[in-house]
Amino acid sequence: MNAKRNYGASLRAGILAMSLVFAGTTVAQAQDDMAEAVEVRQSLLQLVRWNLGPLGNMARGRIPLDVQQVGTNAARIESLFGMMGDAFATDTRGADDETDALDKIWDEPQAFAEKIAAAQQAAAELTAAAATGDEDTVTAGIGALARTCGSCHDDYKAD
Amino acid sequence: MNAKRNYGASLRAGILAMSLVFAGTTVAQAQDDMAEAVEVRQSLLQLVRWNLGPLGNMARGRIPLDVQQVGTNAARIESLFGMMGDAFATDTRGADDETDALDKIWDEPQAFAEKIAAAQQAAAELTAAAATGDEDTVTAGIGALARTCGSCHDDYKAD
Repeated sequence: MNAKRNYGASLRAGILAMSLVFAGTTVAQAQDDMAEAVEVRQSLLQLVRWNLGPLGNMARGRIPLDVQQVGTNAARIESLFGMMGDAFATDTRGADDETDALDKIWDEPQAFAEKIAAAQQAAAELTAAAATGDEDTVTAGIGALARTCGSCHDDYKAD
Repeated sequence: MNAKRNYGASLRAGILAMSLVFAGTTVAQAQDDMAEAVEVRQSLLQLVRWNLGPLGNMARGRIPLDVQQVGTNAARIESLFGMMGDAFATDTRGADDETDALDKIWDEPQAFAEKIAAAQQAAAELTAAAATGDEDTVTAGIGALARTCGSCHDDYKAD
């Protein structure tokens, strides 16, 4: 009877220990998933920046306007924004990783999705403007696209 | 005369110092450019991995085959490979940054460009296969795309 009680206590302790291990694994897995999500987001935004940077310099007259290059880069930015919603799908509130993404993104997903859609739309319009070759429209389009970036960062990116 | 000679010596010393500063600036700028190029490449390959990973798990039967998801991701991978040549345009032989990119990439640019083209072609074929909905063709297409990745890594990525 003593042995039986000990067995029962041991079994309960074992189950408790296993639960803790599984809970630990789940938490660790969640942190891994969040770490990957942060990396993916930052990669995506790095590529947007890489493609948009030269266009900003063109719009500011720092380098010559190259309408064909604008068309190429705007189309790339449009395709990158097509991945943005999925890239931000993983809720990283409470992640261990450093991120500038504010919790508000997952507090108000609809408003955030609208920001992404606005940026993608601006990139599509810039691609179309570049195809017409009209330099004023292209320059205005670069500014419009850059403003959608700023508008989203104002609301959803840490200063 | 002494003063004049001193002025001349001082001027030469000044020009030498300025040259060293400019050379230093150029070297620092080149290292900055290389650091950015490495970041851009790694971001691009991170996004390829993010999109290809689930497809590999589908092909191996670890998760259910979702043909629509395959089509979405394959199209994304195709668009990412459209940026790969530009992302590797900056020659980073001698960069301070850690990179797995082998110098061979810039020793044999034509052969490297062919690897990129093969991967982009495989992604396009997988997109087309997903549109047909034929599961065997889709699974084979995932394998074919993954092999183009491995083929390029074998030759151009540090082990």
